[in-house]
Amino acid sequence: MLLSKRINAIGFEYIRGEENHLPIVSAMSEIAGLVSITIAAEYLSNAHGGKGILLGGVSGVSPTEVAIVGTGTAAEFAARAALGLGARVRILGNSPYKLRRLQHHMRQPIFTSLTQPKVLAKALTTADVVIGAIDMNERDEPIVITDDMIRGMKPGSVVIDLSIDQGGCFSTSRITTHASPVFREHGIVHYGVTNIASRVSRTASIALSNILAPILIDIGNAGGVREMLRNDIGLRRGVYIYQGILTNSFIGRRFGLPSQNIDLLMAAL
Amino acid sequence: MLLSKRINAIGFEYIRGEENHLPIVSAMSEIAGLVSITIAAEYLSNAHGGKGILLGGVSGVSPTEVAIVGTGTAAEFAARAALGLGARVRILGNSPYKLRRLQHHMRQPIFTSLTQPKVLAKALTTADVVIGAIDMNERDEPIVITDDMIRGMKPGSVVIDLSIDQGGCFSTSRITTHASPVFREHGIVHYGVTNIASRVSRTASIALSNILAPILIDIGNAGGVREMLRNDIGLRRGVYIYQGILTNSFIGRRFGLPSQNIDLLMAAL
Amino acid sequence: MLLSKRINAIGFEYIRGEENHLPIVSAMSEIAGLVSITIAAEYLSNAHGGKGILLGGVSGVSPTEVAIVGTGTAAEFAARAALGLGARVRILGNSPYKLRRLQHHMRQPIFTSLTQPKVLAKALTTADVVIGAIDMNERDEPIVITDDMIRGMKPGSVVIDLSIDQGGCFSTSRITTHASPVFREHGIVHYGVTNIASRVSRTASIALSNILAPILIDIGNAGGVREMLRNDIGLRRGVYIYQGILTNSFIGRRFGLPSQNIDLLMAAL
Amino acid sequence: MLLSKRINAIGFEYIRGEENHLPIVSAMSEIAGLVSITIAAEYLSNAHGGKGILLGGVSGVSPTEVAIVGTGTAAEFAARAALGLGARVRILGNSPYKLRRLQHHMRQPIFTSLTQPKVLAKALTTADVVIGAIDMNERDEPIVITDDMIRGMKPGSVVIDLSIDQGGCFSTSRITTHASPVFREHGIVHYGVTNIASRVSRTASIALSNILAPILIDIGNAGGVREMLRNDIGLRRGVYIYQGILTNSFIGRRFGLPSQNIDLLMAAL
Amino acid sequence: MLLSKRINAIGFEYIRGEENHLPIVSAMSEIAGLVSITIAAEYLSNAHGGKGILLGGVSGVSPTEVAIVGTGTAAEFAARAALGLGARVRILGNSPYKLRRLQHHMRQPIFTSLTQPKVLAKALTTADVVIGAIDMNERDEPIVITDDMIRGMKPGSVVIDLSIDQGGCFSTSRITTHASPVFREHGIVHYGVTNIASRVSRTASIALSNILAPILIDIGNAGGVREMLRNDIGLRRGVYIYQGILTNSFIGRRFGLPSQNIDLLMAAL
Amino acid sequence: MLLSKRINAIGFEYIRGEENHLPIVSAMSEIAGLVSITIAAEYLSNAHGGKGILLGGVSGVSPTEVAIVGTGTAAEFAARAALGLGARVRILGNSPYKLRRLQHHMRQPIFTSLTQPKVLAKALTTADVVIGAIDMNERDEPIVITDDMIRGMKPGSVVIDLSIDQGGCFSTSRITTHASPVFREHGIVHYGVTNIASRVSRTASIALSNILAPILIDIGNAGGVREMLRNDIGLRRGVYIYQGILTNSFIGRRFGLPSQNIDLLMAAL
Repeated sequence: MLLSKRINAIGFEYIRGEENHLPIVSAMSEIAGLVSITIAAEYLSNAHGGKGILLGGVSGVSPTEVAIVGTGTAAEFAARAALGLGARVRILGNSPYKLRRLQHHMRQPIFTSLTQPKVLAKALTTADVVIGAIDMNERDEPIVITDDMIRGMKPGSVVIDLSIDQGGCFSTSRITTHASPVFREHGIVHYGVTNIASRVSRTASIALSNILAPILIDIGNAGGVREMLRNDIGLRRGVYIYQGILTNSFIGRRFGLPSQNIDLLMAAL
Repeated sequence: MLLSKRINAIGFEYIRGEENHLPIVSAMSEIAGLVSITIAAEYLSNAHGGKGILLGGVSGVSPTEVAIVGTGTAAEFAARAALGLGARVRILGNSPYKLRRLQHHMRQPIFTSLTQPKVLAKALTTADVVIGAIDMNERDEPIVITDDMIRGMKPGSVVIDLSIDQGGCFSTSRITTHASPVFREHGIVHYGVTNIASRVSRTASIALSNILAPILIDIGNAGGVREMLRNDIGLRRGVYIYQGILTNSFIGRRFGLPSQNIDLLMAAL
Repeated sequence: MLLSKRINAIGFEYIRGEENHLPIVSAMSEIAGLVSITIAAEYLSNAHGGKGILLGGVSGVSPTEVAIVGTGTAAEFAARAALGLGARVRILGNSPYKLRRLQHHMRQPIFTSLTQPKVLAKALTTADVVIGAIDMNERDEPIVITDDMIRGMKPGSVVIDLSIDQGGCFSTSRITTHASPVFREHGIVHYGVTNIASRVSRTASIALSNILAPILIDIGNAGGVREMLRNDIGLRRGVYIYQGILTNSFIGRRFGLPSQNIDLLMAAL
Repeated sequence: MLLSKRINAIGFEYIRGEENHLPIVSAMSEIAGLVSITIAAEYLSNAHGGKGILLGGVSGVSPTEVAIVGTGTAAEFAARAALGLGARVRILGNSPYKLRRLQHHMRQPIFTSLTQPKVLAKALTTADVVIGAIDMNERDEPIVITDDMIRGMKPGSVVIDLSIDQGGCFSTSRITTHASPVFREHGIVHYGVTNIASRVSRTASIALSNILAPILIDIGNAGGVREMLRNDIGLRRGVYIYQGILTNSFIGRRFGLPSQNIDLLMAAL
Repeated sequence: MLLSKRINAIGFEYIRGEENHLPIVSAMSEIAGLVSITIAAEYLSNAHGGKGILLGGVSGVSPTEVAIVGTGTAAEFAARAALGLGARVRILGNSPYKLRRLQHHMRQPIFTSLTQPKVLAKALTTADVVIGAIDMNERDEPIVITDDMIRGMKPGSVVIDLSIDQGGCFSTSRITTHASPVFREHGIVHYGVTNIASRVSRTASIALSNILAPILIDIGNAGGVREMLRNDIGLRRGVYIYQGILTNSFIGRRFGLPSQNIDLLMAAL
Repeated sequence: MLLSKRINAIGFEYIRGEENHLPIVSAMSEIAGLVSITIAAEYLSNAHGGKGILLGGVSGVSPTEVAIVGTGTAAEFAARAALGLGARVRILGNSPYKLRRLQHHMRQPIFTSLTQPKVLAKALTTADVVIGAIDMNERDEPIVITDDMIRGMKPGSVVIDLSIDQGGCFSTSRITTHASPVFREHGIVHYGVTNIASRVSRTASIALSNILAPILIDIGNAGGVREMLRNDIGLRRGVYIYQGILTNSFIGRRFGLPSQNIDLLMAAL
C-alpha cells in the first residue's frame, strides 16, 4: 500500500550519522540498557512474587550477580547501571576487540569472558540476572542461550531479552507486552517486551526528537526531501521506499518484492 | 503481658555494636537506601502510570534530578544508587560536618546543601525524585518537608519517605503497604511503606542473621542470656524487659509504666 | 609579498598527523580548556571586582554551575578542570554521537544536553560560567549564543569565548587582549583574548616544539622540505604557499587570489 | 573596652560542633584550600609576570608539581583541586596516621611523605607550587620551611602560606593584602593574604551563615544567650568574655589579663 | 637477662599514637598487604612451578579470584593491590561495621561477606588466592580456615598467611623463611614467612624510621627516656620493662613472671 | 622445507580482526604489560638480591617511580598495574595523539611526556623501574634507550624489555630465558625473556584459544582453509605460505626468497 501511494518512506532506525553510526539505535539502546536493570531489580524483589533479593551490594551479603551477553551500547549501559547499584557484573561477548573497547568505555573494571558455550553455561548457573543485549548492528553471529542453559539457572532468576525485536537471543524467549510483561519458564522469570524504551516514553521521545528535529529543519532548509537526500548520505541509508519504489533489499527479500539501489535510483531520476 | 510472663525481651534495633553503632539499623538502612531508588525508577516510568521518565542519564537528555534529604547510611546508599544509574544528585542535610563525612564516603563528588527552608523549597521544584532519609539515630532535629514544598514540585514526581517508621519527614506522608504502596497528593506520587527492606526479604534476612546468629551462638557459649548480658554492654542496650521489669524508659514514658535502669538492675539481681 | 618571494609557507594549524587529526590544534585546545577555567575562577572572585563566588564545591553550599558549549578537546579539558575543582558541569553540544564520545573520555559522569535554543537559553539562566568551546575543526554548524540568552544570565557571571579566533560563538563577544582581557555587556563579564594558550607561554611553547621539532629533524633527514613534502601527506596539508604559488583555497577565496591544489602541483613540478 | 561594657563575646572560630570539630574553621579551610590553587595558577601564568606555565597536565608535557605541606581540611581541598586540574601532587605531613586518613578521604591515590627536613628540602627543589596548609587545630608541631629551602626552589615558583594568620609556616612569609597580594623573595613569588577565603566573599558568607544562622535561631528559642550557653557545650567553648569577665586563657596570657574558666563561672553565676 | 640489667625496654609494636592507633603495626601492615599480592602473582605464575595463571584481568578471560580474610590495614592494602591488577576480590570479615568502614576506604566497590563457615568454605572453592589478614589488634575472635576448607580449594592455588606471626589463621599454616618460603599441603601452595615486610627491607626501614626518628628526637629534647615517658602516654604503652621491672602483663602471664602496671610504677618511682 | 611440502602456513601474529587490529598481539600484550609489573616487583624486593624496595605506595614513604616507554596495549596494561599497586607512573611516547588516546583509556590521570632524548634521560635518573613497551605494530620509529641513559639510573633499578622479541629497545638488552631471566649491566637488573606471556602459560593459552578456536570452527563450516581464506580478509593477512608459495614479503626479503601477493595468487588459482 505504501508503495502504491508513491510515498517516500524512511525507516529511522536505518539513518546513519557521523562515522557511520546509527544515532537512533544508539539512543534507544542507552535507554534500554539502563531500564533493563531497574526492571530486573523489580522482578528480583518481592513486589511481583520474586525471590526477594536486592539487586545491588550491601555490607556482608554476597552480591547479586548480573551476566550481560553482548558488547554494544545497551550492554554498556546495563553494565553501568548494574555496577552503579553495587552488583557484580560479568560481560560475555564473542569478540576480544569489542570487550576491550567496552572496558575502555567504563569507569570501573569489569570482568569479561568470551561466549564459548561452556563458559556461558557456567556463568549462567551463578547469575541472578541475565541481560541479553546482543547488538545485531555489530553484525555478530547470533549467540543463542539454549534451553539447557536456562534450566541450569537458579530458580527465580530473571532474564531480560533486549534482542527480542530481532528474534531474541534466548531460546526460551517469547514476545510479551507492557500489560503482561513476564512469564516463567523452567522457574526463570522472562521479560520480553519489545521496544523496552517505551517504558519511559517521555525520555525516549526527547531522545528521538533530539535526532529527528534537526533533520526536519534541514529538510525545510534544503527545499524538500529529495534535495535533502541528494546531499545527506546518512539519511539516504534510511530510505526504504523512494517515489513508490522499494529500496530496502532486506524487506524485498523478506516479502519477495523487487528492490532497487537508492543511490542508482536517485542518479537516474 | 510480656511483663507478666517475666520474659527477657531484647529489641534488636537497639542493640549496639563496635564504636557504639547500631548494626541492625545500619544494615536495614543500606538496603532501604538502595531499594528506594529502584522503586523511584519504577514509579517514574510508565509501568504504573508514571510520568514516563528514566531515572538515569542518557546522552543529550537533561538528567533526572534526585534530592536526598538526610546524611545517614540510607542517604548514602540512595545517593550511590542514584549516581550509579546516572542521575544528578543533591544531598540536603542540617550539619556541614555530616555532609563532609558523607562526601568522604562516596567515590564521586556529590553536591550538598544545608536544609534551610528556602534552599529546600527551591531544590524540590526541580527534583524528579525526593528521598526522605533522615536518620533519627543521629539525633538531628526533625526536618519537615511542608505541604507547600510538595505543592511546588513538578507533577508526577515521586517522594519516598524512608523515615515513615519514625513518623515521616514529609507532612503529606501516610503509611502505606506493599499491597497498595503509593498514593497521590498534590499530583505527587507518595511511597510510604514501612520497613521497606522487607521488599527484598531474602537479602534482608541474610543481613539480619549475619548480626543475630553470632549473638545467639555467644549466648549459648556464655551459658545463658543473663551471663551474656553481664559481659556484652552493647547487647544490654537492646533489653527492654528484664526478668519482667521494664527497662526501656522511652516505652515507659509512652505507656505510663515505671521503668528501671538495666545496669543498676543487673547489679542488684 | 610572501608569494613574490617564492617562499614555501606552512601554516602549522593545518598540519595533520595520525588518523587525520590536527596535532597543534589539539595541543592548544587542551591548554585553552584548562586555562579557561582558572580564568573564570579569577573573574568570579573578588580579585577584579567579580561577584565573589568560588568556582568549585564546598560542603553545604550550592555548587557553582559551569556550562560548556562544544564537544571537542577544549570542551573536554574545560570540563575536566571544572569537575576537578568541584563545580557542577553541563555540556551542550549538537551531536549525540560526540556527546557520547566525550562521556567515554571522562573519568566521571557528566551531564549532556543537545543545543536546542530553548535548552541552551534555560541552561544559561542558572550558569555562573559559560565556556564557548565550539570546535570548528569538527565542522559543526555554528551555535550562536544570542544577545537575549546573555541577557537572561545572572549578573556578574563570566563567559569565555574560546572560539573567538574563528569569529566567536557569543553574539556579544569582542576580541580583547591580555592587557585588557575583559569587558562587561548586559552585566556579564566577557573574556575574549585570542590565542588564550599564550597566557601560559612556556607550557604552550613546549607543547608546540614537541610537535614541530620532530618535523624539522625529519626535514633535515629527508634532504629538504620538498622531499619531505613528497612523503608526508599530513605535512603537505599544512602548505599554503608552495614555490610562490598559493595552495590554500580558503585564503584564495578570501583574498580573491587564484590557488592551486598542492597534490597536483607537486606531481607537476 | 569590651570587658568594661560587660559584653558576652563569642569568637566564632572557637565554637565546637559534633565530635568536637570546629565547624567554622573547617568551612573556611575548604574554601582556602580550593582558592589557593586557582591563585597559584594565576601567578604561574603570564598574567602577572609569572613564569608562564600551566597549573595542570596536558598530553606530552611534564606536569606541574604541587607540594602541599599539611594534612588538614585545607590541605585536602588544595590537593583535590590540584589533582582536578591535572597536576602532580605530593602531600607532606608529620603524622603517618593523618596522611593515611587523608588518603582515605581522596578519590584518587596521592603521594605522601613525612616532613623530615631532608625530604622536605628535596621536594621543594622540584615543586612549581608549594601550599603551606598546616592545620594548627590539629596541634601539630610547627613545620617551618626555612630560608634555605626556599632558596633551593626553581625561580618563578609560587608559595602560598595558608597558615599566615597563625604566624605562617615559611620563614620568608610576610602578611600581604588583597590590594597587593604578592612579593618576591629569592626569586619565589610569595602570597600571604590573611583570611584568603574573603577573596570569594559571597561563598564564604553563605558558608558562615550556614553555621551561624541555626545558632542564632537556637538562642532565640532557648530564651537568650545565657540559657543557650548552659545547654550547648560547643558554643560555650567559643565564649571569650562572659558578663564582662575574660574567659579565654590564651588571650589572658597574651595581654597579661586575668581570665576565668567559663564552666566554673557559669556554675557560680 | 633484660630484667637483671635494669634496662628500660620498649616494644615498638605496642607504641600507640594519635587516636590510640598502633603506628608501627599499621605501617608494616600496609607493606605486608601490598607485598602479599605480588608474592601471590609470583606463585601463581610458572616461575616456581605454579599453575601458570595471571593474577589480574585481561579481556575475555575469566578473572583471577582473590579472597581476603580480614578487615584491617593489611586486608585493605591487599585488596587495593589485587583490584589494581584487575583481579576479582572478595573480602570476608566477621563484623558488618568493619566491612562497611573498609568499603569507605576503598576507591572502588568491593564485595564483602560475613565469615560464616559455610560462606567461607564456598568462597574458598573458587579462589585462586587466599590472603589471611586477620588483624589481631582489632581483637576479632580468631577465624580459622580449617583443613577441610583448604582441601576444597582448586589445586595449585596460593594461600598467604599474614597472621602467621600471631599463630596463623589457616590450620595448615607453618612458619617458613625467605630462603624456603613455601610448601605444599593438599596441593595448595602455602606461604608462611613471618615479618613479610622484611622482603622489601629498605622500604620497611624508611617506614619504621619515619615513626621512630621523631620519638628519639623527642627523647633527646625531653631530657631522657623517663621524662619522655611521663608525658607521652602512647610511648608508655610500649614499655615492657621499666627500671628492671616487667610491665607487660601478657609476657608476665606467658612466662610466669610477676608484672606491674607501668602507670602506677611511674607514679611511685 | 615448509615450502617444499606445499603447506599452507598462517602466522597467527599477523591475523587481523575487526577494524584491522591484531587480536593475538593485543591479547599477548595485555598479559605482558600486567606480568611485567609483578616481575619488576619481584626484582626490586630482596627475594633475588634486589634493592629491597616495594613496588607501590605506602603512607609517608616516597613512592616507587615507574617509567613506561611506549603507548600501545602493553604500555597501557603495565601502567594500569603499576598505578593499581600505588606506584607513580610516567608514560613516555613519541606521539601526542597516542598519549592522549592512552590517557582516555585509563581510569586515572597519568603523566605523559614526549620521548625527546633529554626528557627520556632525565626521567630515567629517578625511575626505579623502566618498562620498554614500544609497540612495533603502531609503526613508531624505534626509540632507543642508550647505554648512557642506563648508566644514569639508580643502582639496583629494574628494566624490562617487552620489545625484546623485535630486537629490544634498550641498547643494553640481551635475550634471556625463564631459567635465567635476568642479568646486571651498569648495576641495573635487566629482564629480557622473550614471549613473557608464557610465564602465565595457562592464561595465555586461554586467551589464544579464545581467538583461534572460532577460526578453526569457521574453517570447518566454510569447507576448508581455501574457502575460508577467500572470505576472511583478516585471516588471509596471516598467510605466509600458500600452496607452497611464499606470500610474506618481509620473510622473502629477509631470506632472499621470491614472494607473491596472496590476493593476486588466490585470484589466479
